[in-house]
Amino acid sequence: MGFDSRQVRALFFDVFGTMVDWRGGIAREARGILEPLGHRLDWIAFADAYRGEYQPAMEEVRSGARPFERLDVLHRRMLERVRGRFGLEGLDEATLVRMSLAWHRLDAWPDVKRAFPRLRERCLMAPVSNGNIALMVDLARHNGLHWDAILGAEIARDFKPKPRVYLAAVEALGLEPSRCMMVAAHSYDLQSAAAVGLRTAHVARPGESPKGESGPSVPVDIAVTSFEELAEKL
Amino acid sequence: MGFDSRQVRALFFDVFGTMVDWRGGIAREARGILEPLGHRLDWIAFADAYRGEYQPAMEEVRSGARPFERLDVLHRRMLERVRGRFGLEGLDEATLVRMSLAWHRLDAWPDVKRAFPRLRERCLMAPVSNGNIALMVDLARHNGLHWDAILGAEIARDFKPKPRVYLAAVEALGLEPSRCMMVAAHSYDLQSAAAVGLRTAHVARPGESPKGESGPSVPVDIAVTSFEELAEKL
Repeated sequence: MGFDSRQVRALFFDVFGTMVDWRGGIAREARGILEPLGHRLDWIAFADAYRGEYQPAMEEVRSGARPFERLDVLHRRMLERVRGRFGLEGLDEATLVRMSLAWHRLDAWPDVKRAFPRLRERCLMAPVSNGNIALMVDLARHNGLHWDAILGAEIARDFKPKPRVYLAAVEALGLEPSRCMMVAAHSYDLQSAAAVGLRTAHVARPGESPKGESGPSVPVDIAVTSFEELAEKL
Repeated sequence: MGFDSRQVRALFFDVFGTMVDWRGGIAREARGILEPLGHRLDWIAFADAYRGEYQPAMEEVRSGARPFERLDVLHRRMLERVRGRFGLEGLDEATLVRMSLAWHRLDAWPDVKRAFPRLRERCLMAPVSNGNIALMVDLARHNGLHWDAILGAEIARDFKPKPRVYLAAVEALGLEPSRCMMVAAHSYDLQSAAAVGLRTAHVARPGESPKGESGPSVPVDIAVTSFEELAEKL
């Protein structure tokens, strides 16, 4: 492949699914907020339906139909679109705000917490997520992770997999694309990063979503099943 | 004053002069690069002259005469403008690059390193500097500091003291301006932050530049002589 891992200076991370368990976390948070109000849902089905509005909401921005907005704003809109299906028409404003900010309180997969310091010794570390800066800050604090910088959608003012998002991250660190590696559990994300010259690492997270991948469906530089294995290969 | 320090959720930091000793650092770096090439300068005078081109270079952007560029690019332009005055016309390209990136290798004042972890326990921490993201990343690594996010000029695409730079930082964290405190050794910076609703802390650094301030010349919420004193007052 001609790939020399010693050339990698920065690691860019997808966050939802790759680093944090949005499915279990949103199910837990929704239950913690709604059960005391008397709601009884299939909490995993609710999490999947809520997240199901994610790509359609971002596509309105990527296509140019709407101006860029932070993911916190999209999460509120997604909630409005999904709640009627789960009998949640009557929630008050404070509850809707708590629900739409539940994404700030998700737990990292255990291997992420264990391997992060080792990876950080070796490379510059930045999320290149579609999440906004405040959301990334809160997830890092919640999980005890130290980023070098928060890059991604809010810096680029567009959403992955638009090429601009990866390139804005590369430019912010003043590096060549080939010195940067995108780490993600989603092949479409890695395919788009590779198309603009980044290195790529696929992390298998088969249970992260209904479409969770047990391996990459596109060519990648590294394929692993955990962040610990990624640290060993770098 | 009606100021309750418990309301402060995020600290925004000026970096050059307030956190790092640009004057001693640039003098040391210039000497380390140029002395082996046979140059004998007044190194502090060179540092002051180099930094003297800082406000004029940024003013070209703030006024709209030039589009926004990262401070790394401005540092190179500033070097071009100053080097003739010090007999440095003959430097090769590699040396000019090293000289213009010397700003990435400055040391933090000792009280900054000591107090940073305590401040970080209490508040979200972000530089709101005119330095670009890569420059802030390198200075943090060099000095062992952990930011929550890197905000400032490159996020706002303009330079302090334009109001947009402070407000872009506030918006990135999703906070009210009154929950954010700007920490700086320069009264003009604090005056502009206060004008858009931020809280302000002045740190006296009388030796940081030829115009170093031993106290604020504008009203501020807190005035201290070290980061340790700031941590005590928060």
